[in-house]
Amino acid sequence: MLEDKSQKLTSVEQLGEFGLIKHITQNFGIKNSTTELGIGDDATIINPENKKVVISTDILAEGVHFNLGYVPLKHLGYKAVTVNLSDIAAMNATPTQILVSIAASNRFPVEAFEEIYDGIALACDKYKVDLVGGDTTSSQSGLLISITAIGIENSENLVKRSTAKPNDLLVVTGDLGGAYAGLQILEREHTVFLADPNMQPEMEGYDYILERQLKPEARTDIKAILEELAIKPTSMIDVSDGLASEILHLSDQSKCGFRLYEEKIPMDSLTISTAEELNLNPVMCALNGGEDYELLFTIAPEDFEKIKNHPDFTIIGHATDLDQGNMMVARGSGELITLRAQGWDAFLNR
Amino acid sequence: MLEDKSQKLTSVEQLGEFGLIKHITQNFGIKNSTTELGIGDDATIINPENKKVVISTDILAEGVHFNLGYVPLKHLGYKAVTVNLSDIAAMNATPTQILVSIAASNRFPVEAFEEIYDGIALACDKYKVDLVGGDTTSSQSGLLISITAIGIENSENLVKRSTAKPNDLLVVTGDLGGAYAGLQILEREHTVFLADPNMQPEMEGYDYILERQLKPEARTDIKAILEELAIKPTSMIDVSDGLASEILHLSDQSKCGFRLYEEKIPMDSLTISTAEELNLNPVMCALNGGEDYELLFTIAPEDFEKIKNHPDFTIIGHATDLDQGNMMVARGSGELITLRAQGWDAFLNR
Repeated sequence: MLEDKSQKLTSVEQLGEFGLIKHITQNFGIKNSTTELGIGDDATIINPENKKVVISTDILAEGVHFNLGYVPLKHLGYKAVTVNLSDIAAMNATPTQILVSIAASNRFPVEAFEEIYDGIALACDKYKVDLVGGDTTSSQSGLLISITAIGIENSENLVKRSTAKPNDLLVVTGDLGGAYAGLQILEREHTVFLADPNMQPEMEGYDYILERQLKPEARTDIKAILEELAIKPTSMIDVSDGLASEILHLSDQSKCGFRLYEEKIPMDSLTISTAEELNLNPVMCALNGGEDYELLFTIAPEDFEKIKNHPDFTIIGHATDLDQGNMMVARGSGELITLRAQGWDAFLNR
Repeated sequence: MLEDKSQKLTSVEQLGEFGLIKHITQNFGIKNSTTELGIGDDATIINPENKKVVISTDILAEGVHFNLGYVPLKHLGYKAVTVNLSDIAAMNATPTQILVSIAASNRFPVEAFEEIYDGIALACDKYKVDLVGGDTTSSQSGLLISITAIGIENSENLVKRSTAKPNDLLVVTGDLGGAYAGLQILEREHTVFLADPNMQPEMEGYDYILERQLKPEARTDIKAILEELAIKPTSMIDVSDGLASEILHLSDQSKCGFRLYEEKIPMDSLTISTAEELNLNPVMCALNGGEDYELLFTIAPEDFEKIKNHPDFTIIGHATDLDQGNMMVARGSGELITLRAQGWDAFLNR
């Protein structure tokens, strides 16, 4: 679990709750002018500077969202932040603050909290967000991280899920399925390790997809790129539960259907080769794998020329009337396949 | 655990995560004009209407903060909200929105979530706050509720912990120690029940302190009362970990000392008689018991006349220079006793 296995460990009891909070948060500075009061009072004070405030929260639970058998605590802290910032990016807003609550059983020493917060600090630095509050408590068993992310943005920039229109183009950033393929490699090697702890894990050559799984980034860069292109998405969502599930969310909220072209789904060659190595359908990794934290959005048809050859974006389909349903057009055959949300569900995939 | 033990139970798998969220949140309406977008998107959108936004978060963990052996789920949901609203009240702000995240093991059926959310809905109605987001997931074991509370307030009304000055008067609302005395009764009767499930619990006559423990209220009413009296506190905190611990927080943040008069600490007669029945020192229940969720604040000395005989407030001491320390003046003897934070600590009291 800990990176340096030889260090002397400190029990949380030795510091107490308030001592622990002080200890682990002392090096977090304030980077945003909107942070009027940070950690240490009953609540943080945010000055929205006449803008809107967007707020989102997500829990990561041990044994459900991560396995400490192969997820380093520092990566976990980093990822817990980025998956929350991804929700703010999906509103086309700029993340500015986070609150971090952690519940951990007494098997976690102070040094474990330090590693988690090292990862949180790294993400805060990279994304220029301030840690402004939270709570730390013990739990009966396991580790739980609950993060609330805050973004501040001009009203006219915000993009909801509910405002796509028929004929809008469906666009996705980056590539999909990699995080799921990476998870499969981690699970495989962990199983091998559990069977024989002397076996060396075979991780070489999988770097890109392992990074997609262990250290995903939030696409907070997309907002500026779209502004440069003079495009405002007509609707947007982040890809956390798989492309199929997210398309259905857009459909449900916008009251339109979608047509997705299988051959257009962007996938990295390593994702494809790994999926094939593991006897998985690569497209299913993209549709149902989840955890890619790319942005999925719609744009008005007249914006096609502005985006068509941009390396950050792929046009993968378009919106239709609701009664046309949500369909994937199969590669080659052109067969219409109904999209279903078989994505990752915290209550099913246990 | 469930109020109606005879009902047919539904597993969360039957609904799935998104189905569960839709099911339990469908009856929550929007009451505040500042709630521009509620549940159902990547994030909620808050319109602060040119005011400041205060945000706080707290976790309640099974086996640490509550025991489902004697805490009804509906009360738990209610309390999870009010303890968070108490933090907003402690900033002298008006709570407006909450986000609720719940992690629960698969021993919790849909009906358990319904009862928790019934309690949450009751608190939302009473305090006129909107449920605007959250997350629901499974956990390896136990139940965890993480709530983020949001308040919107004019900048000039906000009160921090860090702005008390020597000679300010120390004031507390309501009475103290009751929640802790109530907890002791619940623990005693639960122990009796575990030893012999046929024994009837002896709860009669303890109503007030049981309610203090099981269904605490947030003192969001205090803001208006103080405004009517034309008093703005010079510093404020809520009493969640015991009076001693909170005084030390004010001291630490405001860089002043405090003198607390034992004989002034407001306690209900039932709290005193129950503590004595249990061989506890009633004053220790107030100092270290916690969970009273009253407000502790300082006011300028010249506001004394405005508040001195008000039934909602008790002047219990005053601020001093920092080098005088934090002392309780003992009843009768006048002996000075150093205040220590022996309050409730989630990492110690397990």
